[in-house]
Amino acid sequence: MAESKEESKLALITRFIRQFPDFPSKGIVFRDICPIMKHPAALTAVMDLFEKHVRETQPLVDLIVGIDARGFLFGPLLAQRLGVGFVMVRKKGKLPGPTVSVAYTLEYGTAEAEIQEDSVSPGQKVVLIDDLLATGGTLFAACELMKKRGAEILGCLVVVELNDLSGREKLKPHAVFSLIQY
Amino acid sequence: MAESKEESKLALITRFIRQFPDFPSKGIVFRDICPIMKHPAALTAVMDLFEKHVRETQPLVDLIVGIDARGFLFGPLLAQRLGVGFVMVRKKGKLPGPTVSVAYTLEYGTAEAEIQEDSVSPGQKVVLIDDLLATGGTLFAACELMKKRGAEILGCLVVVELNDLSGREKLKPHAVFSLIQY
Repeated sequence: MAESKEESKLALITRFIRQFPDFPSKGIVFRDICPIMKHPAALTAVMDLFEKHVRETQPLVDLIVGIDARGFLFGPLLAQRLGVGFVMVRKKGKLPGPTVSVAYTLEYGTAEAEIQEDSVSPGQKVVLIDDLLATGGTLFAACELMKKRGAEILGCLVVVELNDLSGREKLKPHAVFSLIQY
Repeated sequence: MAESKEESKLALITRFIRQFPDFPSKGIVFRDICPIMKHPAALTAVMDLFEKHVRETQPLVDLIVGIDARGFLFGPLLAQRLGVGFVMVRKKGKLPGPTVSVAYTLEYGTAEAEIQEDSVSPGQKVVLIDDLLATGGTLFAACELMKKRGAEILGCLVVVELNDLSGREKLKPHAVFSLIQY
């Protein structure tokens, strides 16, 4: 039987994800999406699937919101395909002008995520994007930033989801769409 | 007289660059490209001009190389338009597997830029991209990384160039193409 178009795209993407045990620290298996970026057809497949999903399920999206730094790889591509704007969530101190920030917990210590205050307006419909969902701490913080600005969160997109770390649970009630799960 | 297509695209882009005096520190005028990202037509204009330039002057490019983090906003878009791969230059410690790194001087202190060793092969033709050229320290370090791997540097692209800081001189003999100059 022929694979569906989606299945063959997912198979292509999967071929270009590598794993590195014990990076960045002992016991963690790092899923590396660099080879996807290097292979134009694999990156096109990622964007095709994200675009299809958003057009079918979140057609009223106003803005794509990407997480520093690997969310920047995919967010502008998706925003351009959809004809909408892109907004950066950055680590604290990187954005000029009035900002809104929120602290969140990392594996070791805490960090702060930040947006420009005028980047999102109350009532705007946003879709968040990052490369990978692990514990969900950063995406959760980004959702908090969106709520602080009164935006409506339509969902979160990631290329890779690490099921064991339950990020999907942490982000509820917001929907997570992931292409590849481990 | 009618503006040329290029002039009208540049005028559009210029409208979406803001300035913030004294950010990130006293005496520095920060040129903020966030509004470009939020306005799909402005971002499309940026990519049109980059794509046209590379097709006309560097048609044999193999890879687009983007600088952490704002080079990631533009690099994958350009790579997809050209049908080539995208490679990340990251701050040290972010990339798994064997890496090549080079130290460079910042305004305050030093930093290290890094690539995955297998991200670029000897002889590959690369174009580097970032949002802004100031003193050129980071792009210079990225060029050093490319040379360490034996890649051929075709040129550097930036949206904004700050003329007073002479980054263009620092990057010689590599060509710099910038859209907007201040």
